[in-house]
Amino acid sequence: MNIAIIGGHSCSPGMARIAEEAGKGIARLGHTLICGGLTGVMEAACKGAKSAGGRTIGILPGYDKSEANPYVDIPIVTGLGYMRNNLVVKNADIVIAIDGKEGTLSEIAFALQMEKPILGINTWDIPGVVKVKDAQEAISWIKRKR
Amino acid sequence: MNIAIIGGHSCSPGMARIAEEAGKGIARLGHTLICGGLTGVMEAACKGAKSAGGRTIGILPGYDKSEANPYVDIPIVTGLGYMRNNLVVKNADIVIAIDGKEGTLSEIAFALQMEKPILGINTWDIPGVVKVKDAQEAISWIKRKR
Amino acid sequence: MNIAIIGGHSCSPGMARIAEEAGKGIARLGHTLICGGLTGVMEAACKGAKSAGGRTIGILPGYDKSEANPYVDIPIVTGLGYMRNNLVVKNADIVIAIDGKEGTLSEIAFALQMEKPILGINTWDIPGVVKVKDAQEAISWIKRKR
Amino acid sequence: MNIAIIGGHSCSPGMARIAEEAGKGIARLGHTLICGGLTGVMEAACKGAKSAGGRTIGILPGYDKSEANPYVDIPIVTGLGYMRNNLVVKNADIVIAIDGKEGTLSEIAFALQMEKPILGINTWDIPGVVKVKDAQEAISWIKRKR
Repeated sequence: MNIAIIGGHSCSPGMARIAEEAGKGIARLGHTLICGGLTGVMEAACKGAKSAGGRTIGILPGYDKSEANPYVDIPIVTGLGYMRNNLVVKNADIVIAIDGKEGTLSEIAFALQMEKPILGINTWDIPGVVKVKDAQEAISWIKRKR
Repeated sequence: MNIAIIGGHSCSPGMARIAEEAGKGIARLGHTLICGGLTGVMEAACKGAKSAGGRTIGILPGYDKSEANPYVDIPIVTGLGYMRNNLVVKNADIVIAIDGKEGTLSEIAFALQMEKPILGINTWDIPGVVKVKDAQEAISWIKRKR
Repeated sequence: MNIAIIGGHSCSPGMARIAEEAGKGIARLGHTLICGGLTGVMEAACKGAKSAGGRTIGILPGYDKSEANPYVDIPIVTGLGYMRNNLVVKNADIVIAIDGKEGTLSEIAFALQMEKPILGINTWDIPGVVKVKDAQEAISWIKRKR
Repeated sequence: MNIAIIGGHSCSPGMARIAEEAGKGIARLGHTLICGGLTGVMEAACKGAKSAGGRTIGILPGYDKSEANPYVDIPIVTGLGYMRNNLVVKNADIVIAIDGKEGTLSEIAFALQMEKPILGINTWDIPGVVKVKDAQEAISWIKRKR
């Protein structure tokens, strides 16, 4: 499966730690991590996934694959700007939102619209988002889902 | 200016009445109404705008301009599906959200991300959205903004 | 109907004259001119259409409607870059290609793919494009088509 | 590097053989094959790449990754229809066109517009496309390019 981790391009060390752990957990389950490919939550998640030998896809807003964080295996450039948020979600089977601002909110909205399971850690409180308290709880939820 | 009215493709008669009034108010101020071009809140808003001699643009998700409601003057087809939500907001100077579900939430998120003024009537309670109680209050807000 | 005029953002005075005449002819037939909204062939076509009291739509590659040439009535911003070429063609019932480089070639390809009638004046020699020698011949062809 | 192979979703056995060989050659050079992910030339190219242990990315027009041919490792869904042709080219460092119809022509146009090297085997005769006679010659050209 593809699991998306969505969240801001800047975040606190605490949120980065959670994203890294979630990325690691996804890789350990043998899933592919998909994200927006940039910094912050996205980079931490990719770093975690790579540390566990996983595969990472980054759907980038711009035209230049060198914008991807160093832990992205497969950068996909789009030139779509923030419209690429929609593609991140479209390519995910499950979405985990961690922290995040308006960009993350648009991705949560798309996930709900596409009726994809979406977990939230310290993020927007939107009906339909399954609140979990940390990476471990998110990964446990995904395990049960299989 | 282009003023967007965003909201669900189905809505209650009460919400339709508000959308129609808001559309009428936009037209009376000499502004162009922009929306997603379909039914529900979008159609009611277009109907209101046309009743006051205004101009209406509908940015459609599909490939066929006949999907537009009958009050759309200028249908723009995109074939982008829900990604077209982003284009509705991009083409607006001010956004009014009325009611609405996840699609509307994605548009609210994009409006906040693009730092466009956004008013909300009976819609998602998101920080940054200026809550107004009805069409009249929304139109008054826009008048003051000029 | 929407008639698209496609062609380069820079062109010779001779090509501009043809584009202007074609725009004028479209407006006189009561059709809407649609184009990429920028300079060169697009601007000349819009100028012609406006001189005959017509309506012009410009589907812009960027985010800023002030990029539109001064003869565009309805600028639509997309932020899609050259992908917006596809939207120009999607929104046209008939396409006229005048001169043009690779961007125009992509639009010709999309028009053929969408099985839309496409006329060519001094442009890429691609099977399926109806060659006409000037604006008058293009307009005559469109008249007969109705 | 990412090397794109573009061409029609149906093709003759001869063209499929060339696409398969080209895919194999790309994989042997250690490059990633990128394509539109569907049948015909795309499938043959992916089959060739996988037979040599390579990696394949398919940028799909629709919403469902099961549309990808069985030799695509990394399907990316877009919901963009033929606009996804632009993303195939954007994600390539070098493009090889084999046979193909209007869709392929749009991709050739985008490659030229983005100033990417493009090789053509039995395809549209467009200035700027480097004509090569078969897969071997294309692969030799790419080797020299490194």
